[in-house]
Amino acid sequence: MTVNPVPFGDRLAQAVATRSSQVVLGLDPDPRIAGEGPEAVRGFCEGLLRAAAPACVAVKPQFAWFERLGAPGWELVRHLAELAGELGLLVIADAKRGDIGVTAGAYAEALLTGPFDALTVNPMLGSDAVEPFVAAARGTGRGLFVLVRTSNPGAAELQDLELASGGPWHEAVAAKVAGWGAAGVGAASLSDVGAVVGATVPGHLARLRGLMPQQPLLIPGVGAQGGRPEDLGPAFTTGRAGAVVAASRSIMTAADPRAAAEDLRERLWEVSG
Amino acid sequence: MTVNPVPFGDRLAQAVATRSSQVVLGLDPDPRIAGEGPEAVRGFCEGLLRAAAPACVAVKPQFAWFERLGAPGWELVRHLAELAGELGLLVIADAKRGDIGVTAGAYAEALLTGPFDALTVNPMLGSDAVEPFVAAARGTGRGLFVLVRTSNPGAAELQDLELASGGPWHEAVAAKVAGWGAAGVGAASLSDVGAVVGATVPGHLARLRGLMPQQPLLIPGVGAQGGRPEDLGPAFTTGRAGAVVAASRSIMTAADPRAAAEDLRERLWEVSG
Repeated sequence: MTVNPVPFGDRLAQAVATRSSQVVLGLDPDPRIAGEGPEAVRGFCEGLLRAAAPACVAVKPQFAWFERLGAPGWELVRHLAELAGELGLLVIADAKRGDIGVTAGAYAEALLTGPFDALTVNPMLGSDAVEPFVAAARGTGRGLFVLVRTSNPGAAELQDLELASGGPWHEAVAAKVAGWGAAGVGAASLSDVGAVVGATVPGHLARLRGLMPQQPLLIPGVGAQGGRPEDLGPAFTTGRAGAVVAASRSIMTAADPRAAAEDLRERLWEVSG
Repeated sequence: MTVNPVPFGDRLAQAVATRSSQVVLGLDPDPRIAGEGPEAVRGFCEGLLRAAAPACVAVKPQFAWFERLGAPGWELVRHLAELAGELGLLVIADAKRGDIGVTAGAYAEALLTGPFDALTVNPMLGSDAVEPFVAAARGTGRGLFVLVRTSNPGAAELQDLELASGGPWHEAVAAKVAGWGAAGVGAASLSDVGAVVGATVPGHLARLRGLMPQQPLLIPGVGAQGGRPEDLGPAFTTGRAGAVVAASRSIMTAADPRAAAEDLRERLWEVSG
């Protein structure tokens, strides 16, 4: 931990520029694809990482698939994060944690440390539950991506409920995220508090970009879930590092994962130019 | 796994009756209290469990405090859950997970298995994110407690936002929870899908009980957070097993943890009668 760490937004902007990529490789080692047991998962993930890394800017291990392996999975996800770092990738821990203040601080000690550069966070519990994550991230040049509008079919049920004050509930979340991130904006005009916004409802993107002009967006839902890179233009109106796009199944099940990642890299670079 | 498991609601009702208690011992081994490192935490938690168990119906390990210990923490929480089972307690894994469908299924494999009888779940992502947890729980006689209205000061910010259709957002969550649990109601008229409702705003309890008449409630916020057992009457209008009440710091920092748990047990038994 340095005294004056480089803010996460600047690290992200630098990484996108250096690697000419906004592709986040999702590591979701479903045993139906990766094989069962820690050794099979290790081999699968290492191979996928080494193959796809040159086309990517970051990797996003999905913690559920490692937790189901028990303690060895916990060791494995850290090992893979370290390998990703050696390959020049940022590491986004996709664990979607959220809990009351003192507990959030304990989660930050577990997941905003070591090889993990950023963490996904669930905002439902409000500011006092998010602020310990913000403090831990900001103090060490790490970042957060807070769930605002997810990519799954059922996301609308609770996230899109219309408020009496106008607008859907998730826009109130977006306003909170902008506030949590306001004091963490770096030289590249990107905050250390970003947002998860799904690609599956592109109509949301322009509006949410307007509400969160300094938030880096982490966009899932491209590929297997139906989102198209061509629809993501509004996410990049603030620059090429305004959004990074996660793809998991479409890369890891491809005959040539590197070619699949490279294809996505090129399509995103074009739409963000 | 049995072919026809006893529904979780019936297991809960039986446990409350057998142990004459609605006290859930929160295991939150903050190193400032428990000491640092897996061995210190193990000793602290084992001692606390053995001391307080006779006055309790369940134990609720808070996963954040174990995850910060890395892989050894993951082994330790399972060991403590097994010990709690041997002491006659139900085990509620307080991990507040929530993710899209296939990922939720992986979390269920990690956390609704072995010694864990129930899991806390975050509902923000909607039905397709909660249903894999419901299926995993129902198939094995396990249960869920879905976050509806949490006990922390910032809970109001997003959970209490007023909807255009009337009522706060968390009441829409409550209606969803009742729906998710409708097919899992046992002979004791309690569902396998319960709800987390904080004790810190007792005015919510009567209304939420009305919206969720068959949900067992898991009530945090008594003791250190300011909630009073005497205010919890509306939670028990459906019977003594209608709610279980989590206490952590007020028991684990007491000079005599067993006496503290016993005192809470007696106050809850009286208010629920």
